[in-house]
Amino acid sequence: MTITQNDDGSLLYTNSEPFLLTSGQQLPQWQLCFETFGELSPHKDNVVLVHHALSVGSHATSTPRNDKKGWWQDMIGPGKAIDTDQYHVICINNLGSCFGSSSPVEVNHQTGHRWAGDFPEISINDMVTSQKRLLEYLGIECLYAIIGNSMGAMLSLTWAIEYPDSLKRLMLTCSSYKAYPANIANRHIQQQSIRIDPNFKQGNYQPGDDLNGFRLARKLGLFTYRNATEWNRRFNSFGNGDMRDDEINRYMDHNADAFCRKFDANTYLLLTTAMDSYNVTQNYPSMAAAFGRISAKITVISVESDILFTPQQQQELYEGLKLGEVVCEYINHQSQYGHDAFLVEVEAFGEYVREVLAG
Amino acid sequence: MTITQNDDGSLLYTNSEPFLLTSGQQLPQWQLCFETFGELSPHKDNVVLVHHALSVGSHATSTPRNDKKGWWQDMIGPGKAIDTDQYHVICINNLGSCFGSSSPVEVNHQTGHRWAGDFPEISINDMVTSQKRLLEYLGIECLYAIIGNSMGAMLSLTWAIEYPDSLKRLMLTCSSYKAYPANIANRHIQQQSIRIDPNFKQGNYQPGDDLNGFRLARKLGLFTYRNATEWNRRFNSFGNGDMRDDEINRYMDHNADAFCRKFDANTYLLLTTAMDSYNVTQNYPSMAAAFGRISAKITVISVESDILFTPQQQQELYEGLKLGEVVCEYINHQSQYGHDAFLVEVEAFGEYVREVLAG
Repeated sequence: MTITQNDDGSLLYTNSEPFLLTSGQQLPQWQLCFETFGELSPHKDNVVLVHHALSVGSHATSTPRNDKKGWWQDMIGPGKAIDTDQYHVICINNLGSCFGSSSPVEVNHQTGHRWAGDFPEISINDMVTSQKRLLEYLGIECLYAIIGNSMGAMLSLTWAIEYPDSLKRLMLTCSSYKAYPANIANRHIQQQSIRIDPNFKQGNYQPGDDLNGFRLARKLGLFTYRNATEWNRRFNSFGNGDMRDDEINRYMDHNADAFCRKFDANTYLLLTTAMDSYNVTQNYPSMAAAFGRISAKITVISVESDILFTPQQQQELYEGLKLGEVVCEYINHQSQYGHDAFLVEVEAFGEYVREVLAG
Repeated sequence: MTITQNDDGSLLYTNSEPFLLTSGQQLPQWQLCFETFGELSPHKDNVVLVHHALSVGSHATSTPRNDKKGWWQDMIGPGKAIDTDQYHVICINNLGSCFGSSSPVEVNHQTGHRWAGDFPEISINDMVTSQKRLLEYLGIECLYAIIGNSMGAMLSLTWAIEYPDSLKRLMLTCSSYKAYPANIANRHIQQQSIRIDPNFKQGNYQPGDDLNGFRLARKLGLFTYRNATEWNRRFNSFGNGDMRDDEINRYMDHNADAFCRKFDANTYLLLTTAMDSYNVTQNYPSMAAAFGRISAKITVISVESDILFTPQQQQELYEGLKLGEVVCEYINHQSQYGHDAFLVEVEAFGEYVREVLAG
């Protein structure tokens, strides 16, 4: 096991021991790309682990070595809600994701070729297991807090159940305790859109190939990150002669083009499939048994206008937590921005984060 | 001009005069398939014109010659909300639609081949113009009422503006006065899904060809006819060991297979494109000028959980009607069933219909 530094300052943890995955398959060797922000305290008791959403990676905020804005730029930093003067923040690119960790875009050292469509199936549990091994290697036994958003919150909740003594506070935003039918259907349409594209070649496309199906999948995903009312509000030409109502198509085309240049289609399939089989209760005899394992204090936050991870899902999660007698609270945040609210309304979500970290 | 009867009892109006379309193109000759339910009064003053939604046709309810259930079976009939003992109900398959009217599946008599992808662009206005000509041929000058749902309501509202003296009452359910950005984006994704499929062959597929892109488009459309919360409610396995959460995929696959066997992909593109350019105000100097033409009394009904034609759109329509000093009322119907509510909750919508017809 080694940790090396990439040119952009991110760190690369490489583990040469085979990783036995949930599926029964093995990764012969594996790696995780991660970044840290703020100093680790001498007692290693100030660690905040941040779990990222589907489409991003470890670069949560800018660093001296990488001044590109991070995906939660205004949330993490000196004096910000996740205060790096106080906390040692760790953000790990999920196992299977194409931003530096083992994924379909990396080389399978057994074949010398990129994994592409042959990368083994990864579960949310596998992602969490890989992160726990990294933190053990770093000598970090107990986390001050875990903060997870969207897909990231799936890892966070799994962590709290599988390693209950290793964290004290947990904040789950726009999350769920399992894959819900509407999400499964939505992802299924996206997955099919990628697969029916002849250029996809069952995953054996070349980097840079034009993947119309993937672009379509992204647009569909993008649509669900807000909601119809918000899209209409944003692009409506009612009383605005400067904009045509179909401007939204150009916006989505542009976004999808940019996304598909930096993200990988096989990875998209891999990660969305991992979400499809997610259910934190599945290895336990009951919901109460699963949630009863948790010792962390939990804050669950839904967004009223979120059509992807609907408030309903988080109410069921909250019910489950109460069944498990977890110390928890539930906030249904009022916002027009849908699933994206935690990225857009940094001020409001910053307050929630501060309360979780102070509590 | 002739009217003949099809084997299933539906009527076929054929007009051999060229139809100059909004696009500037011409249909050399054209036809409308329609059905009537209930007797026409001697003064021809009991006609209720019902405008159908995207995916159906003239068969709104069963008849002696065609006992298949219609798309509004429980709404139209003797003693029902639209009482055929009292009203002469007419339902016309829209111009461009593949259920008997001129459409891409019909033969272009100038070439002897099916129109397929060469069928000219049709506007909502064109559909309304064609229907007005049919009604003039039938000697029906003034309609007792028009009732339109979803895409059908686009025709209904256009009718009220273009032929203000020809109707008295209008009910618009799950509608809008123009194409909204979220709808345009949604349809654009569906249209692209159809077009990227190599089997689509730019519209030159053969009947019965396997069109995966079209099936995907249907699934995406289907998803928006309810909403995430409702899909989750319906397919959730919370406390239900008999159902898996991915059952929804089989449901959608099955629905899409069935739909794509009976509907035509070129027609789907044609009709959704017509909706994209819909805006009843576009030929008038202002909203007030457009809506000010209306003399009918109007009831606008939205469904609170409709993510396709959102309540917001109908509130803007209502504002426009008030600008035009139209006698109108607006009802925001509370329901979990989203856009489909007018098909599912026949009892509640039947009450609204009765009030409109009585008013």
